Amino acid sequence: MIGMADAKPQISSGLEGVYIAESSICRVDGQAGGLYYRGYSIDSLCKNSDYEEVVHLLLHGRLPKAQELAETKKVLAESRNLPEGVVSTIKHMNGKAHPMDTVRTAVSMLSAYDPEVADSSNEANMRKSLRIISRTASIVATIGRIAAGGEYVAPDNSMSHSENFLYMLNGKKPTPQQLDIMRDMFIIHAEHSSNASTFGTMVAGSTLADIYSAVTAGIAVLKGPLHGGADEAALHMMNEIGDPDNTEVYITEALAGKKKIMGFGHRVYKAYDPRAKVIKTYLLQMQDSSSEEVKRLTGIALRAEKLMIDKLGQSHGIWPNVDFFAGPVYRAAGIPAEIFTPIFAASRTAGWCAHMMEYWENNRLFRPLEYYTGAIDLQYVPIDKR
Amino acid sequence: MIGMADAKPQISSGLEGVYIAESSICRVDGQAGGLYYRGYSIDSLCKNSDYEEVVHLLLHGRLPKAQELAETKKVLAESRNLPEGVVSTIKHMNGKAHPMDTVRTAVSMLSAYDPEVADSSNEANMRKSLRIISRTASIVATIGRIAAGGEYVAPDNSMSHSENFLYMLNGKKPTPQQLDIMRDMFIIHAEHSSNASTFGTMVAGSTLADIYSAVTAGIAVLKGPLHGGADEAALHMMNEIGDPDNTEVYITEALAGKKKIMGFGHRVYKAYDPRAKVIKTYLLQMQDSSSEEVKRLTGIALRAEKLMIDKLGQSHGIWPNVDFFAGPVYRAAGIPAEIFTPIFAASRTAGWCAHMMEYWENNRLFRPLEYYTGAIDLQYVPIDKR
Repeated sequence: MIGMADAKPQISSGLEGVYIAESSICRVDGQAGGLYYRGYSIDSLCKNSDYEEVVHLLLHGRLPKAQELAETKKVLAESRNLPEGVVSTIKHMNGKAHPMDTVRTAVSMLSAYDPEVADSSNEANMRKSLRIISRTASIVATIGRIAAGGEYVAPDNSMSHSENFLYMLNGKKPTPQQLDIMRDMFIIHAEHSSNASTFGTMVAGSTLADIYSAVTAGIAVLKGPLHGGADEAALHMMNEIGDPDNTEVYITEALAGKKKIMGFGHRVYKAYDPRAKVIKTYLLQMQDSSSEEVKRLTGIALRAEKLMIDKLGQSHGIWPNVDFFAGPVYRAAGIPAEIFTPIFAASRTAGWCAHMMEYWENNRLFRPLEYYTGAIDLQYVPIDKR
Repeated sequence: MIGMADAKPQISSGLEGVYIAESSICRVDGQAGGLYYRGYSIDSLCKNSDYEEVVHLLLHGRLPKAQELAETKKVLAESRNLPEGVVSTIKHMNGKAHPMDTVRTAVSMLSAYDPEVADSSNEANMRKSLRIISRTASIVATIGRIAAGGEYVAPDNSMSHSENFLYMLNGKKPTPQQLDIMRDMFIIHAEHSSNASTFGTMVAGSTLADIYSAVTAGIAVLKGPLHGGADEAALHMMNEIGDPDNTEVYITEALAGKKKIMGFGHRVYKAYDPRAKVIKTYLLQMQDSSSEEVKRLTGIALRAEKLMIDKLGQSHGIWPNVDFFAGPVYRAAGIPAEIFTPIFAASRTAGWCAHMMEYWENNRLFRPLEYYTGAIDLQYVPIDKR
């Protein structure tokens, strides 16, 4: 007998329009082009704050007092050093694995070195969150460092999170502009409500798996090209364009051929992406960069942006998104394309942990249904009769 | 201003009752106590089939012809050996990490050693699925082996999946009964529709992340005590009972004290769990086992089952589930409690891969919503004014 007993239910494809929880972490204003963490716009946070303060804000729901910020900074700084086993695993995977695969593996492995991994109290989870946030950045820097042929750089605990990241990646202190870029990139990628990777984190944590399992799941989700990776693809496109003077021809031809232009348009933002706006201020500073590559990429990015806005901005609601401008500024900070998405993961770990902690306050196991459309009650047939 | 602009929408807590997809992989008949893979009952599969055939059935939707089964067995067998880097990572984590953390890390690391990791064709995904299924079992066996103080045992490709698993775990060939137990345990854990770990796998894969990312996410989800781990807890309870003659007193006191008795009751099955039924046949054979431990556990399990059914079976619909009987038979197969849940993961990898492949045929990114209840438009306050 093949057939269905029940009437076909409504399928919530991709869970579009389905609300899974209440949350007070992030507000995305797609119409006006605003992004707010715990009520504060990312513009005001980039202007006044740093990543450590944003981490505290996301995890605890409010800006820290001086003593609290000092404590958060201290734990983040003291957690930076990577266990030798993790560095060894990164080296084993170097040259063979996609960097996101290595981040996923190395963060998963961190669990072995956290004595509080099985302590599910809120206090322990807060401490573990800080350690994961700190060490994921160290992991990403080390992946970039080792891929470039370098050796592991021990962290400098006197530096900020952003400065130390660039130090562990490049083996030298960043310039003031590079540091500003890095801090803002960490801030603007830290959180974006219940997108796929944050949701994947919550699904894992909803079984009361520990925070390392949850964050590892988030990284696994982020790897997919429908989620992460567009910044790397946009940089690749700019390198294909090659020279700023080729920009108009390339974009016009791409539009005519209906080719996808990476880094434009966003499912939520129907106005200028507030994160792209933050990055653009750096591009405007970089037009006369002493680096030929940065100057070239900046020229292409700004000319492509102008053209796209003229053709598709107001008329079609298609604006540059965060991924479009990321490539040139990352390159200005000395960051290779292969770790753009890993940096996204390192920054977003803050948002993943904040969502997990909030969800655990009213935890409910995620267990949706599938509608069965297959065969019913088949009889086993011996192999020579098939 | 603090407040909400929109009316509060319905929250689908835990996604209960929400259908996410059509599927023809698994039918769970909770009322009658039946579990069917692609239309075939697990009873008929345990009686007639083996794990390799079930893997083919789950992945391809039908029982294989002789040539297809031979090919599936060949790929599974030839993929068994673990890369040296993975064994090294397992050793680094040994003694420090929960075995599920090590499985999650090691499976994630496998991605570095699969040359087809970035090939998203269905054919490549089928091949990768077989390799992951094969190697996840090798990883679990090696974790158990190294935890017991042994060295990595190279696989024997002439053995079946189940036999080789016990060989890599214990360093010697299993007895015929041990082999039967292992094969049936692999078969009955291979699939169970869209529960949390399978759903987590699909969330990761829905971004078009590769199958290693998806399975790693599944393992991360499975670690939580609301999902995996009840078999280990049930064995712990039996060891607490200690002697079969203590069973009635322990259970009666536990029921009176409203203490949770591990391994009874199930969210879906309101009749005897069909998987528990398969395992019980072994318990009935093991009552006079020459192993004191196995005999003792078997006595406790069967007496606890009888008592619980008398008190709660027909009257309350609370029956023994798959986790209740697992401990004694695993112990009879020489398997330590620490790798019960890892074995679940190794077996379920087949179901995870099957769901992923099916979902990718009509892929849709999972992106649910949260209802924002937090502050709106806060002004940044300098740190000395907070």
